[in-house]
Amino acid sequence: MSPIGVFDSGVGGLTVVKELVRLLPAEDIVYFGDTARVPYGIKSKETVIRFSVENTLFLLKHNVKLVCVACNTVSSCALPKIKNSFRVPIVGVISPGAREAVYATKNNRVGVIGTKGTIKSKAYEHEIKKLDPKVKVTAVACPLFVPFVEEGWLNQDVVLTVAKHYLKPLKEAKVDTVILGCTHYPLLKNVIKKVLGENINLIDSAKQVAIEVKKILSDEEILNSRRCGRSQFFVSDNPEWFEELAGRFLGKPVKNVRKVSSV
Amino acid sequence: MSPIGVFDSGVGGLTVVKELVRLLPAEDIVYFGDTARVPYGIKSKETVIRFSVENTLFLLKHNVKLVCVACNTVSSCALPKIKNSFRVPIVGVISPGAREAVYATKNNRVGVIGTKGTIKSKAYEHEIKKLDPKVKVTAVACPLFVPFVEEGWLNQDVVLTVAKHYLKPLKEAKVDTVILGCTHYPLLKNVIKKVLGENINLIDSAKQVAIEVKKILSDEEILNSRRCGRSQFFVSDNPEWFEELAGRFLGKPVKNVRKVSSV
Repeated sequence: MSPIGVFDSGVGGLTVVKELVRLLPAEDIVYFGDTARVPYGIKSKETVIRFSVENTLFLLKHNVKLVCVACNTVSSCALPKIKNSFRVPIVGVISPGAREAVYATKNNRVGVIGTKGTIKSKAYEHEIKKLDPKVKVTAVACPLFVPFVEEGWLNQDVVLTVAKHYLKPLKEAKVDTVILGCTHYPLLKNVIKKVLGENINLIDSAKQVAIEVKKILSDEEILNSRRCGRSQFFVSDNPEWFEELAGRFLGKPVKNVRKVSSV
Repeated sequence: MSPIGVFDSGVGGLTVVKELVRLLPAEDIVYFGDTARVPYGIKSKETVIRFSVENTLFLLKHNVKLVCVACNTVSSCALPKIKNSFRVPIVGVISPGAREAVYATKNNRVGVIGTKGTIKSKAYEHEIKKLDPKVKVTAVACPLFVPFVEEGWLNQDVVLTVAKHYLKPLKEAKVDTVILGCTHYPLLKNVIKKVLGENINLIDSAKQVAIEVKKILSDEEILNSRRCGRSQFFVSDNPEWFEELAGRFLGKPVKNVRKVSSV
């Protein structure tokens, strides 16, 4: 049976792999991290689309039955384009996250945090408004969060100071639910709760994405029946760096990461 | 007369353009910033070499008479390779910076700060040891400095806290001279002086690079004699973002930045 394909600009998409493995342990997974061109969050829509098409083609060469776009920037900028370009089912992270947020909010005030590209696209806002026009959305970009996580600065006072600065508009808007609109941000949950309070609902799309993937595979009757799936990891650069960071996102070590010379 | 070519992974190389324009106002300049693949500092040597060869080829298409590598990561990882591959004179930032530091230090203790790629390469250490084996070098990577500068966080307390953390080994080593081994770092001079003291010598390679370029053009008798040179700017992505940041590095606004579809 064919594997599930997952791609991301780098290492963050492993949070999605973690949930896929938990929910669908029999599935094989092929992961591609575009570490030669990471990060995508500061790049233009046009460039993100070009990179995403190339990444999808790479996964298709591995005969994947579904492509999971485990990157918020790609999902918000490039999903319609790649959905139109390929026949395989393609799942992004925006709709699942938006649905969960609309379901979770009690006061109809939802915050969204993400990279510049994700916030500029207004993809979460559009999706939430489609689901429930009453929900008020406050969205802010937090560009320093990704470098903090990648450097392993997760609980330092410095991170708290920057988080207070970024999250001020969400606090003022009195949101009760916040979409963590970047795969790196779940690692900053503690800091975000310190700023917005213990009772804030933090929505991490990864779980919802895994549920959606399971539904599609089930509907199309292409779920795997083998007992134990296998994950393979490919990157466009720096497999050592990827292996070093991977544990932080996947919750267990990753080995045998293979570098591909071009995607 | 042919222009001088300058390339960098992004916008930081404009600090070198600024010095070239000051010292060689009659020269035309063609600048290329690889903003689709920025940053280079976290990427492998092999990938940095591949990108650098492509960038050099782009400049050669514009008939440049000399290529100036205005990026510390490229200069430290890829310079020998590109010098061997092309016949045009190629100037990096490492030797000029190292020379200036060896000249400036009184106590023979020099600090080097840069990206992970630059520090890992030990290029500055090798160059300094060649010039004067007595000089003791202490080198540290400061990976959060580039995102701080690109986000315009130059004087905040947060930056000071992070700088204190990174620069502790230099303080302990009692260096009297520090090479700012990344084009972004001159913008953090104030913060670095707060940590290491007002009397620290901060070496910014850009000026020395311009002096070396002038010497080569003069030796080869290819200095331009026109009265006022013209600078052209090309990027591989996001010309608006480049224009927005450019003023911070060049000291004056940049307009008409052109995006090239592939390098």
